[in-house]
Amino acid sequence: MSDFPETDRNRIHRIPARGSYDRETVYQIIDEALVCHVGFAREGQPFTIPMLHARRDDTLYLHGARGSRLFGHLREGSPVCVSIALLDGIVFARSAYHHSMNYRSVVLFGEGREVETEEEKERALEILMEHVAPGRWREVRRPSPAELAATSVAAIRIQSASAKLRSGPPVDDEADFGLPVWAGELPLRQAALTPQPDPESRQELPVPGYLAAYRRPFLTVDRNP
Amino acid sequence: MSDFPETDRNRIHRIPARGSYDRETVYQIIDEALVCHVGFAREGQPFTIPMLHARRDDTLYLHGARGSRLFGHLREGSPVCVSIALLDGIVFARSAYHHSMNYRSVVLFGEGREVETEEEKERALEILMEHVAPGRWREVRRPSPAELAATSVAAIRIQSASAKLRSGPPVDDEADFGLPVWAGELPLRQAALTPQPDPESRQELPVPGYLAAYRRPFLTVDRNP
Repeated sequence: MSDFPETDRNRIHRIPARGSYDRETVYQIIDEALVCHVGFAREGQPFTIPMLHARRDDTLYLHGARGSRLFGHLREGSPVCVSIALLDGIVFARSAYHHSMNYRSVVLFGEGREVETEEEKERALEILMEHVAPGRWREVRRPSPAELAATSVAAIRIQSASAKLRSGPPVDDEADFGLPVWAGELPLRQAALTPQPDPESRQELPVPGYLAAYRRPFLTVDRNP
Repeated sequence: MSDFPETDRNRIHRIPARGSYDRETVYQIIDEALVCHVGFAREGQPFTIPMLHARRDDTLYLHGARGSRLFGHLREGSPVCVSIALLDGIVFARSAYHHSMNYRSVVLFGEGREVETEEEKERALEILMEHVAPGRWREVRRPSPAELAATSVAAIRIQSASAKLRSGPPVDDEADFGLPVWAGELPLRQAALTPQPDPESRQELPVPGYLAAYRRPFLTVDRNP
């Protein structure tokens, strides 16, 4: 896959050594995340909204509701910016100054459109569901025409993007190594707990395999919430 | 604490029953999150950037780097929008249409300024560090004047905000209850793994109590990454 061209819009200004324009790196971060933050502007006023997303090739699908402010904006073909952050750990240094986070983040730019045809909309909903739980789509009741009509899906063509990543231990000043301060990393992961069946269920059904060992790569933790 | 006034800017358009303008609800979500997404616009082009934050009263502090695009924007007193999302679970319904997420999210609006005095900057850095790890600030080496000068801190006065929350099992159509599809919730939590000491450490120090049982309320999982 080709790199994203480095332009004024997607350039990493701070600590460029942590930056990447590599398309595969950017797409892996997008694909692992369950939530993205969509930014747009109306008459100079910025808005940022958390949303569910899924990617296929160079298109990011967003799932929203007919009549929302964002979808009105997208219909006009206005620019959007989407950010995603996966937290991998907290970095504890001996000095306040060298504390940091380990993370993988993406900022991408594009212009959206509303998905119009029933066919493309259903396909996008399948992509969104398979992003969350691969294997789920073929088991569930598919959307009726009325449900499809009540759903809005936006497609953003990814024009430009960059990733920023940090990993590893703290980097302290040589003079601080003698301080009696614990230093290191507290690793963080998203964890999936034991699936909780709907209490309204009228039949007992086994937990599907894709939920019993849910991986994103999340941890699976055997504990009730 | 008083509610945020409901205005055109912070109004919940979609599923208003999930919305809240209650200041305490909004602030609890801000205080639990480790990352926020800061949106701003320059000449109609939106930007969204993941950042570390901490709140004190009605002020949100952001920690960044001198010379960044965001800080140039804040210095001009331009409007910003900040979004935060905590994922609590994935909601699996019998129909594709009723799938959902359990979450607690916040969208807030304000105008920023750069923190100028050394005194307020150091105080803001303390607030940011104590947000991540309460108890840490009094153990570490404090920033030197040169380090303070190399750090930028923004203060955003929270003018307006709203929260959106969903919890609980799926809500399926009555006609779908007979389908042989597992339905329920997959609970998600952020988990903190075993702290990893800096391999460059020249002395063995015990893991501080605030890291050995790190709670946000994250899970603490006894597993190496």
